[in-house]
Parts: sequence; structure tokens; C-alpha cells
Amino acid sequence: MLVLVINCGSSSLKYQLLDMTNEELIVKGLVERIGIDGSVITHEKIGQDKFILETPMADHSDALKHVMDALTDPEHGAIKDLSEIDAIGHRVVHAGEKYANSVLITESVMKVLEECNELAPLHNPPNILGIKACEKLMPGKPMVAVFDTAFHQTMKPEAYLYAIPYEFYQDYGIRKYGFHGTSHRYMADEASKMLNVDIDDLKLITCHLGNGASVSAIKHGRSVDTSMGFTPLEGLVMGTRCGDLDPSIVTLLAEKKGISESEVTTILNKESGVLGISGISSDFRDLEKAMNEEHNKRAELALKIFAKRVRFYIGAYIAEMNGVDAIIFAGGVGENDAYMRDLICSNMGNLGIKLDPYKNQIRGKQTILSTNDSAVKVMVIPTNEELVIARDTNEIVQLGRR
Amino acid sequence: MLVLVINCGSSSLKYQLLDMTNEELIVKGLVERIGIDGSVITHEKIGQDKFILETPMADHSDALKHVMDALTDPEHGAIKDLSEIDAIGHRVVHAGEKYANSVLITESVMKVLEECNELAPLHNPPNILGIKACEKLMPGKPMVAVFDTAFHQTMKPEAYLYAIPYEFYQDYGIRKYGFHGTSHRYMADEASKMLNVDIDDLKLITCHLGNGASVSAIKHGRSVDTSMGFTPLEGLVMGTRCGDLDPSIVTLLAEKKGISESEVTTILNKESGVLGISGISSDFRDLEKAMNEEHNKRAELALKIFAKRVRFYIGAYIAEMNGVDAIIFAGGVGENDAYMRDLICSNMGNLGIKLDPYKNQIRGKQTILSTNDSAVKVMVIPTNEELVIARDTNEIVQLGRR
Repeated sequence: MLVLVINCGSSSLKYQLLDMTNEELIVKGLVERIGIDGSVITHEKIGQDKFILETPMADHSDALKHVMDALTDPEHGAIKDLSEIDAIGHRVVHAGEKYANSVLITESVMKVLEECNELAPLHNPPNILGIKACEKLMPGKPMVAVFDTAFHQTMKPEAYLYAIPYEFYQDYGIRKYGFHGTSHRYMADEASKMLNVDIDDLKLITCHLGNGASVSAIKHGRSVDTSMGFTPLEGLVMGTRCGDLDPSIVTLLAEKKGISESEVTTILNKESGVLGISGISSDFRDLEKAMNEEHNKRAELALKIFAKRVRFYIGAYIAEMNGVDAIIFAGGVGENDAYMRDLICSNMGNLGIKLDPYKNQIRGKQTILSTNDSAVKVMVIPTNEELVIARDTNEIVQLGRR
Repeated sequence: MLVLVINCGSSSLKYQLLDMTNEELIVKGLVERIGIDGSVITHEKIGQDKFILETPMADHSDALKHVMDALTDPEHGAIKDLSEIDAIGHRVVHAGEKYANSVLITESVMKVLEECNELAPLHNPPNILGIKACEKLMPGKPMVAVFDTAFHQTMKPEAYLYAIPYEFYQDYGIRKYGFHGTSHRYMADEASKMLNVDIDDLKLITCHLGNGASVSAIKHGRSVDTSMGFTPLEGLVMGTRCGDLDPSIVTLLAEKKGISESEVTTILNKESGVLGISGISSDFRDLEKAMNEEHNKRAELALKIFAKRVRFYIGAYIAEMNGVDAIIFAGGVGENDAYMRDLICSNMGNLGIKLDPYKNQIRGKQTILSTNDSAVKVMVIPTNEELVIARDTNEIVQLGRR
């Protein structure tokens, strides 16, 4: 069974083609700058050199046509005809409280997704565009939606409600939803396999640390809490996002600077995080370079503040679950940044968390980083959201066919 | 040495007279509704019945005159003449980054306090009015300012900086200051005495749980982190304050409801917290009654969410300090609410925290609540901010006299 995985952003489209008989990745690619000058597709048949084509693409439908051309190209492609694709899996950011699992896309599902636009005005509309473009180009092809929010729907009201007037939850749906659910689920499943312990017997803390970053508490395979909230702004310090903040600061900034709420939101989303503290970059490699080579104090501070916030959530979730069996790192920073992992974990020995400095040097490989006598396992599990999307798609479409 | 302790709010004035030779409380009282209809003074000479007088009081100076009259009243008073008072200690909320300790009030100190008005526009101005009224009525009397923020000035930049553009700290002083410092300091000092362990050898988590509520991590006698932030809105769920919140919600509420930033601030400060969730009351006794007698689900939820947030911070601070020796409860809820203490602590046995259900029934008494085999001591220490203010005043004025 061949599954095409599609992940649409506002001006980008990521795709992968996987053969689900053996979960083999066949093709992956990325379209950037859709609808703006300099549209470009970067396509890679695994094992071959990348194929890059710069050509105008007006919209997601246009972009998808180029993806289809690349997939069926005699030289760079992997299939002769689109009919060989059995199903399409779409990443969709927000399903509100509607779906706690992935679903086969139908007309009624599309209606629900459009209702959720208001909750994720930046993310859901391009996801919907991608689904519609696929429907147009490959009518009737079974499609599945896999949601970032779904995995966290197991949170209880005491975890997802804010301490604001209850009617704001009833009237506007203001509650914690959580994101990165597909990644947290993948990490938890893989950790269970790797530790050879049933997921029903595990308490896990999964740290997805990339440019966006979140932590989840996963008890017996179910998300019981997560650091992102109503939006992906809450929680950890991120590349350019502030994470947790005294709510008074939002209104104070609007008043002090004489700017609108939406301008404050832009500052907190795009100009804050480690970029805001350091004044240099949102990229941890740049910050570590500035710290090491130029003794840049604010770069060092940004990294310390990031680490402190991750440690803060790890401790909080240990208390929440009354213990933890393993802490798992993923995402660009979590998978590759040994310095950051050390900064986070190095002083938690009394909580049974002991990083092995030698093992910690690993980059981007599924492995255990803790010492043999560490009561809590510390692990790296490179995340693979596309594989989860393909697995869900495969499973739902196969089941649907039975 | 007789010390008068003054704590001015916007329309209230609390006072105590203490004999610092033996730390004996002689008189305490409260003036309410200053400058509004129905001004009233409630005065109590310890060991006697309360004396209540309703009479118009236009301002803090007026209120203070009535306090002076009550103090020197032949029947209800404790002194013959105001000259018997040796010094006055004032509670002042905010000293910004200026003072990490209590100080003798001079002209230059007054200037600094006025500079801090902007950081605490609701709290500092009445504190300053109280100081000026005392200066007017008892000119030349030595006065000491004791700050809510001072104890937390030991926090490091990685604890007090937010992940927003660094210039907001430089230009507007936006950082975590923390509050309730006098209470957290008192709890830490008393815990050290009670446990008979030098404070330099202790890791403590102090929970001041009242209508306002905050938690502090105190390592070796120094505040290393605390839950209130730039303002007292951040952190725990409180009676009517939201505490931590996805910052996006602030701007969303302003847009959705078409209200101003300051109206949102009012909602988050006055209509949120356990009151907002329950829709009933900010008083925990009301909520527990509603839960027990009417099976009110939202009252139960409000209590659970409050407990969860306290547990969250306890876990976070255990990670931050790499362990904890004792967790201390104070404040109206912390000292008296056995149900809430149980809800917070009951499921943290794997962290070495074991509450003794029998000992936990205690109300308002300095005591240890944990089981004998609990690795972490859980304690109640009724807070006494006025005593700390009197102690600091005594010490500074005595030193100043040498």
C-alpha cells in the first residue's frame, strides 16, 4: 500500500511517499514560497540526488501539480501513474474537541475542520487547501486527517481548563488543546518498544524541542498534560515564541508601546523566545557559537532560560504523575544538541536522573543517554510525524476497505 | 522597644503595636473604607473585646489619627503618649530592583519608592500615603520600609527574565519580581528553627496560599524562584486571579468581547481564579460546602485545578533545586484547609512526600503534617508578616542608633 503524506503550511507543502508494506520511505520533498516570488520545489527520491525546480506556483493546487509531476517523472519519480497511490494522509493542526483520533475525510469532516478555523486561523486554512487540492487532482482517493491536537484529548478538565470565567470555555472554546500530538505519540510508542515495557505500565515525559517546542506527560499511553495551550504560544521558551508569561505583560506592552493586541501577539510569537533574549538568533547553533567563541552573555542566558523552563516542566510532570520512568528528547534541538540536553538534565541526580556524558554526545539516533544506574531513563528518539500519519492512513483505509 | 507596624491598602489600613523586648503583640486593628462611605476602625487590645467605631475618614491621614486616638485611649489603648512608640515599620509592596533588604526611610528612599509607583500602581501609592501620614503625625519618628519584593531579589537572571525582547527589561523593567517575600522569608526562618537545621543546609518550598497565593523555592535561605511574576497575577490559581495563562488568550479576549486591555486585566484579576471556574465564590469554605452539600461539580473542579497548579510548582521547584527537605504551608487556605492540603500532597509518595491524614487535620498551628517515614517534611507554619516587619524595624533602628 502506497501512502502519500501531505503537510501544508501557509506558503509551504511538505510531502512524503511511503510504501506501508514495509514502512519504507520512497520519496520526500518540500515546496516553498507558494503564491510568492521564487516558488521552488525540492524533491528527493531516496538514494538519489535532490531535484530542485524554481517555477511560479500560484497556490497550493499549483504546487500539488508539481508534486504530482515530480512523483511520476521518469527520472526522479517513483510511480508511473497517480493511480498507484492508494491513499493520502494529511496533517491537520486543529480538531478542537471534535476528534481524539485520526479520521477518514468525508464531507462532514470537512465541515468540522472549517469550524475549527477560528481556533487555528494560521494553520487550519492551509491544511484545508491541501485537502481540497488533492481532491481536485485525485478525485475519490481515500484521504485521512491526522490531527496535532488529537492525542491530547485524553487530558482531564483539571488539566485543560484555565482559571478564567467558565463561560469563556463554553462560549469561545478557550481551553488548553496542546499540539505536537503526533510527535509525542510517536515518541511514547517508540520508547515503549525500545524499553520493551508495555505502554500501559509506563510514565513518560516527552520533550519535542525544535523551533516550536513542547513537553508532554504521558501516563499509561495517554497524554495527561502538555505545555502548549490554547495556542502554540504557551509553555516552553521557543525559537521566537515567549512561552509562559505573566498575562499582565501583554496588556502593559500594548499600553507602553501604543500598539494593538495583534501587534503584541506578533512580538510574542515572532520576536521573543531565545531570539528575543539573545538579540542574535533563534537557532541554537548560532547561540552556542556566540557563547563559545565570543563569550556572548545574552546568548548564554537565552540557553540557560530555555533549559530552565524545560527542567521546570519535567519536575512539574514528575509531580503530576507521581514519578517518571523515562524522559525522551526529540526535535532538532532534542535530537542533536548535546550541550542543551546536558544543561537540562545535569543537576537532577536526586530525582534519579543521571545523564551519561559520553552517551550524550550522540546526534539524531534512537538511543539511551542515561547511566546504567539512572533510575529514570533518558532517551533520544528522533521523531517521525510523517510515519505516524502514514500508519494511521494505512490502518484507517485498510479497515475502511474491509 | 515599641514598634508600630503599618500596612496601607488603597482604602484600608492594618496596624499592630508590638513590644520587641519579648516580641509581644499588644494591639492590633484595621481601618476599612477609607475615603468612602461607612469608614470604620476595628481596634483590639489583646486580651480585651474589640472596639469598633464607624466615623467618616477622608484619607489615610485621617484614618491614622483615629488609630493614634485608639492607641492612646485610656480604656482601649496601650500607651499614654505617642512618644512611647520607638519606631514605625511600613509594609511596602514594590521596591523594583532597588532594595534587597528592609531600609530606614529617608528622603532619598522616598524618591525611590515614588519611582516604583509605575511598577505597582495599585499598591505603592497607598503605602507611600501611609508613610507620609505617619511623618505628619509623628515627625522625626524613625521609620523602616519592609518590601514584598526584597526577599526575591536573590533570584538569578535565568529565573527572573522572561523570554521576550531583552529591551523590554531594560526599558520598562519587565521581569519577574515576586511578592509575598516577607511571608516566604518568615516561613523559611521558622522551618529552619523548627527542624533544628541551619537554613544554609535546607532546600525549602514555601506555599503562601490565601486569597492571593504564591510558591517559592528557597535554597540555603535564598529565594531562587517564585510563582508570582512581574505582577501578582502570575503563577498559582487564586481566589479571583487567573495565574498562569496562555498569553494569546489576553488579546483574544479583548478582540472577542470588544473590550479594552484594562478591562481584560480587570477580568483576569477580579473575576477569574476559583471564582471564575466555579461561578460561586472565591472563598474555599464556600466551594467545599457546595461540593460536599450540593455535589457542585464546578466547585469541585475549581478546587482540583487550584491543587493541581500548586502541585505543578512543587514538582518544578523540586527539579530546580534538585530535591527538597520540607514543604511549608501558610496563608488562610494553607493553614486551615486540610482538604486542600490533602488534595495537593496525597499522590506524591514516589517523591518522598507522605502526608499523615491524622496530623493533617490541624488548623492554624505550627506543626509537621508528614508521616515519620516521609523523606520530605510537610509543615504548617502560620505566617506572621507583621512580626517580620517589626523585627526588621527593631533591628535597623537599633543599629542606626548605635
